[in-house]
This record gives sequence, C-alpha cells and structure tokens, in this order.
Amino acid sequence: MKSEIISVGTELLLGQIVNTNAQIISQELQKIGVDVYYHTVVGDNKKRLMEVFHTAWNRSEVIILTGGLGPTQDDLTKETIAEYLNIPLVLDEESLNRIREYFQKRQKEMPINNMKQAMLPKGSKAIPNQKGTAPGVILEKDGKTIIMLPGPPFEMEPMLKDYVVPLLSKKTSAVILSRVLKFYGIGESTLEEKIKDLMENQTNPTIAPLAKMGEVTLRITAKAGSAKEAMSLIAPIESQIRQRVGEYLYAFDDEKIEDVVARLLLEQNKTLAIAESCTGGLVSHKLTEVPGISKSLDRAIVSYSNRAKQEILFVRSETLEKYGAVSEQTAIEMAEGVKRISKTDIGLSITGIAGPSGGSTEKPVGLVYIAYTDSSGCFVEKHFFSGNRSEIKERAANAALHLLRKNLLKYHEEDEVWKP
Amino acid sequence: MKSEIISVGTELLLGQIVNTNAQIISQELQKIGVDVYYHTVVGDNKKRLMEVFHTAWNRSEVIILTGGLGPTQDDLTKETIAEYLNIPLVLDEESLNRIREYFQKRQKEMPINNMKQAMLPKGSKAIPNQKGTAPGVILEKDGKTIIMLPGPPFEMEPMLKDYVVPLLSKKTSAVILSRVLKFYGIGESTLEEKIKDLMENQTNPTIAPLAKMGEVTLRITAKAGSAKEAMSLIAPIESQIRQRVGEYLYAFDDEKIEDVVARLLLEQNKTLAIAESCTGGLVSHKLTEVPGISKSLDRAIVSYSNRAKQEILFVRSETLEKYGAVSEQTAIEMAEGVKRISKTDIGLSITGIAGPSGGSTEKPVGLVYIAYTDSSGCFVEKHFFSGNRSEIKERAANAALHLLRKNLLKYHEEDEVWKP
Repeated sequence: MKSEIISVGTELLLGQIVNTNAQIISQELQKIGVDVYYHTVVGDNKKRLMEVFHTAWNRSEVIILTGGLGPTQDDLTKETIAEYLNIPLVLDEESLNRIREYFQKRQKEMPINNMKQAMLPKGSKAIPNQKGTAPGVILEKDGKTIIMLPGPPFEMEPMLKDYVVPLLSKKTSAVILSRVLKFYGIGESTLEEKIKDLMENQTNPTIAPLAKMGEVTLRITAKAGSAKEAMSLIAPIESQIRQRVGEYLYAFDDEKIEDVVARLLLEQNKTLAIAESCTGGLVSHKLTEVPGISKSLDRAIVSYSNRAKQEILFVRSETLEKYGAVSEQTAIEMAEGVKRISKTDIGLSITGIAGPSGGSTEKPVGLVYIAYTDSSGCFVEKHFFSGNRSEIKERAANAALHLLRKNLLKYHEEDEVWKP
Repeated sequence: MKSEIISVGTELLLGQIVNTNAQIISQELQKIGVDVYYHTVVGDNKKRLMEVFHTAWNRSEVIILTGGLGPTQDDLTKETIAEYLNIPLVLDEESLNRIREYFQKRQKEMPINNMKQAMLPKGSKAIPNQKGTAPGVILEKDGKTIIMLPGPPFEMEPMLKDYVVPLLSKKTSAVILSRVLKFYGIGESTLEEKIKDLMENQTNPTIAPLAKMGEVTLRITAKAGSAKEAMSLIAPIESQIRQRVGEYLYAFDDEKIEDVVARLLLEQNKTLAIAESCTGGLVSHKLTEVPGISKSLDRAIVSYSNRAKQEILFVRSETLEKYGAVSEQTAIEMAEGVKRISKTDIGLSITGIAGPSGGSTEKPVGLVYIAYTDSSGCFVEKHFFSGNRSEIKERAANAALHLLRKNLLKYHEEDEVWKP
C-alpha cells in the first residue's frame, strides 16, 4: 500500500520547527507494513497545497496530511482538500460538543473561531482530539484513504496511534517489526566492530546502529507475514548480539534508563533519596516521569549552594574547604547525608561543573563525581563529560541513573537484562 | 527567488532520522531572502527522484538536494539529475585529489568505490567537503541553480554556510527578518481574535500564530532591501500587538521563560529557594539550564513524601491531615518553609497530582497549587492542567516560572516587557 505524508505549515518552510510529525508517522506506518514513498512540506497556501495534493492523489493510496486544522484564517487544509474533491464541509455536532467541552473544562468561553474546527467534509469520520480542539478527519474516496491530523505533535501522536494505525493495519497484510536494543558504556564503532559480520550478512532482519548522546542503540527490523514470524526472524540475531555485547545492554524499545531504575527500585521495595548539585534536579525530574515512583523516591535535595550542602546534607565545612564542592569526598558525604536524613535504603549524589564557567586546570568543566551508598557500602565514579552546560547535565544525570541500575542489579541472582 | 529542498534518502521515509537538513537550509535561506516553497523527501530510487526533480524543475529557480552523494550503489542523486538534464558526468581531478587526501590523512587506502564521488556533471562547480569525502555540486542551467549537498548534517552544514549561502545571497537583494513574540495565559483563538484585523491586512510583514504546550507565539516576518528597513516594517506592527495583548507577552525570539526569570532574579540580586512536589525537580532543572543561576538559586527541595515535607520544610502535620498534601495551605507552608530554612529572598512551591493515579473527584489529576512568597507576602495559584503525567509536570513547571516572573516584575517601575 503506497502512502505519502503532506505536512502543511509555513513555520516548517521557515525552519522554525523541524518536521518530527513526518518522522513519527513514518515510523508507525513502517511497523504495520505501509510503505511511505514521499514526504512533502507546503506552506499555508491554498493554491500550492492544492497542487501538492493533486500530485499525491494521482500516485498514492493513502495520503496523510498534518497541520492547518486550527481555528485561524491561516488554517485551510480541510477547506482545500474538500474543494479539490468537490465535497462540501458540514457541521459535525459531536465534534462541536467536544470542542465546547474542551473550553468548559477550562472554564472558558468557546471563541466563535473554533466553530470552524467542527466543520468536516461530508461523509468523513472525525478523529477525537484528547489534547486540543481540532478533530482529525478520515475520508475514504475512490478507493483512497485521506487522513488529516492536527499539527502540534502532542495532539497528533495519540490520534495517529489510537485511530489511524488500527485503521490502516486492517488494510495491509505485511508486518514490519522492530526490536531496539539499548547499550550504555560502549562506543558506536566498538559495538559495530563486534557485530560487523552480523550486520553485513543480514537482509531480513536488518540491523541498524544509531548513536545518541552517551548511548548506542541497535534496531533489528524484520518483515514477515505475521508478527510471530517476524519475531522468530529477530530472536536468533538478538541472541547472537547479546552473546557478544550483552554486558552493555540495559533496555529495549522505548524503555529509558529511568524506567529500568524505577522498575528495579519498586520490584526490590527499595527507598531512595537523591542529593544533586550540578544536575540541578534533572535526575529527580527524570525518575519522577515514571508513574508510581513516589513509593520509592522519598526526596531529592538540590543543594546548589555550599550552605545548602552543609545545612541540609551535613557535608562538613572541612571537606568543602579541603577538597572543594566538586570532589570524591563531597560526593560521598552528600550521598551518605541524604540517605541518613531521609532514612532511605539508598542515597545517590551528583556534584560537578556544568559550565560554561567555573572550571579550572585541575577541575575542568565536565568533571562530575557520582556517589551511590546503601547498607553494603559507598561507591564513587569520576567522569569527564563533554558538551555544553545542558549536555553535561544530561550526561551526568544518565550516568547517575546507570550507577543506580548497576548497584540495584547486584541484588539479583543473575543479570536482570538477560531475562527474556 | 523561489526555491525548494529535496532530501534524498530512504532512512528519512522509514522515520529512522528526522529531516533536520531541510530545517537548517530553510533557516539559512530565509535569512538571505530566498523563499522556500516546498520540502520534499524521496527515497533512494531513480525513477521517483527523477519525477520529483521534474516537478521542482518546472516550478522553482533554486533547487537544493541533500543526500545520495555517497560512494555506494544506492547513492544516485548526481547520476539522476545529470541524466534528467542530459549532462554527462566527468572526472573532477581536484575533487579526486581531495578524496585521496582524506584517506591519506587517516592512513587508509582509498576504496575504489569512492572514485565515483569525484565524478561531477560537466560544467558544474565542486563544493569542497571538509568533514567527509563527498564533494557538493553547484550547477547553473537555463537560469536555474541546482545545488547538491551530502546528507550527513555535519558535512552539509559547513558547505551550506561557507559556499551556498554566499553564492545565493549574491543573487538576491532582499532580507527576510523575523521577530517572535511569546505569550502566556491567553489561548490561540482569543489572541487571534484580538489581532484579527492586523493579521488580515498585513502582507509585509506577515503575522503567523503558533500554539505550543500552554503558550502561543506570534511570528512577525518582514521582507525588505535591508535589515534596517525590515525592522522598521516590523516595529509598528509589534507596537500595535503589544498595545492589545502586551500583558500576556513574556519573551522574544529564542528566549524561554526560565531565561526571563533567571535574568530578572540576577538583575534584582534576589535569592531563591524552591520546594517541589509533583514537578519532581523540573522547575529547578529548567532554571539550572541557565548559566550563572547559582548566584541566585540556593537550593531546591523535592519533598516527594509527606515525611520530607514535614522534616525539611516544616509543613505541619495538622495541615497535611486537615487539608492534604495537595492544598493551598500546604503550598503556602512549603513556600514559606523553604524560604525560611534557606534564608533566601523568595520561596516558590509546587504541589499537585501529576497522575495517572492518585486523583479523586474533589482533587482530580492535574490539580496543582503554586505558591510564591517574599517579604511582601504570599500568593497562591490553583490550576487544573490537562495531559499525561509528563505534560502536567511540564505545564505546572512553566506556570510556576510564570508566577515567579509576574512577582519579580512588580519590583519594576513599569512592566519589564514594555521596554524596547
């Protein structure tokens, strides 16, 4: 089934935003075996949108449009497509009610402009929008499927996954399945060297590496007639990869390091307290993205000033004077201090220099100490991270979570990650 | 001058990478007044690339292609375009030497495949590639300019900026300048209603609204012969917009709310301590993204458990029992507690229900209290935020920073935002 994606919005042509919608839609369509042949971006311009749609109409069976469903005059996707296909726009009462409810919930009057969002091409189906006011549209005509989705990714994505993917997967028989393996502590080229022969000899499944900040992922992708068949193609390759580099593997698919850590903490009924300095709350923010973590995380202290380190965490002034705030000794006292005052099982601390200023020859920007403590003892790691302030914070926070994971795994009989 | 961008690469259609090249090229072209009317992505497929190029050739004066210049069989951009234009590929000795040097420097033999990269359309100019082996191509024909650049962004970007931008800016005299106004506390449709007449009557500058999570931006874009002239077109429109909705305006261009708040705190020499519950450290993380904030931010306490709220912030157990952790009273005691223990000028607190569980009829998921306190008193806000756990955290953190901004502005003789 041939498909293409048309993104409508002058902001994309101005480079104001990057076209993540096309990426996300492509990923989802790929999973269900719908081939994407083109992405097109066109501005909020009726004539040009009509021309682009005309081209798409003549070459694709599925056309997904994003953007231009808003309440403003600029927003003309529905109007243009309806005009091209010679279909009138009619009021959809259910959509209008949903838009009204949206404003009622926020105790606001519905502006008259938003009425326009409830006007849909006659014979089309509305896709409810849980995050905003613009309903999506599913329109079937002449054996083709046209789908219109709002531009903001946080509105578009759930509508895509909950309505569009199920609809299209009914129309296709091929299944494309991917399995993502996530590695930490090994570089991309080292990883590639170790599995080079596997990568070169594979066509189904394929193995594609991707390096992100501080981690490497491998995507194993198989195409088959069924999910079961696809999985049976992936399994032996995954097993070979694990045999070679399994010690660096920490998660699968969409799982993040904070998800892994939260799961281990909750499984083991362990309580945690965190003392952060240079990461400024980022470790705690990441962990609190995981629902249910309040059962484990008691508190986090962002002791940004030395005074806070002394007053709350009882880091000794002699330690700060003799070794400095960014030192192994301070990291240890922060971790032990926060564990003691919180009466938790585990204490975790991060202290370092995120920059851009504050570095010296002995203690450069990027120097970070991370300490973990529990009843069995205290462990400290020293890191030198590269990047700007924001990247150093990100790398340090991830390293702290990985140190936590490593220590939580010691309570397992065997390495957690090896379980199927 | 009409231009368009064609990105060649199946990896884009599979959603493996996002099309940042199109964004970066668009940004650069916009600065020099070259209008971008379309982005197209097409796979590594000769027939489809030729069709896409045919369309572009008939509608644009400048066509920039990225990708498909590599040494493999898959890479067919030059071959396809040369065939379409009926121009033979010939060996460019200078490019071949550069590719040889690239491998020599790395003490490697040049693979024979890479020879292909030195074959350029006859009459074209090579763009040297400092970061890789594929030279770029500048081809002028029938009054049109065709530019081919390699796909990897770190190779493409310097070639774009050092060669393509100077070349194209000679061909155009226009300058396009944008000014972004950021608003908070007003919905997209309400904002638009208030400035509808301005939007409708404007063609230069244009006014384009964009809604993001919890905020709305307006982009005013002017085209003129010089930057000065463009600015003089923008200024009166900006002034009219400010007269109507200036109270909601909080930042310009790339500035974020945390940048505004950090600037105000540092300008006013005010110290801050934060007590977070449902946001889990996100407010502190955002603020500590800003360099120099350590002069103002003393500490943040993520008092996730009730015990932490009592032990560190001295929230009274009666308050927690009578009103609950998510209440106006607890928010006030958290803000005052953290200010008192930290001896800072300002205390800020956030307590709420981020979900997905923990909500009730009286206290639903999304209910958040935010309190601000300083020597002049304490202010509390009650919010109902929509979205998932992560979105509620994000909205609550932004609301807390906006409350901080609002209170910091009262120290100004006049509204900060009104200063030119």
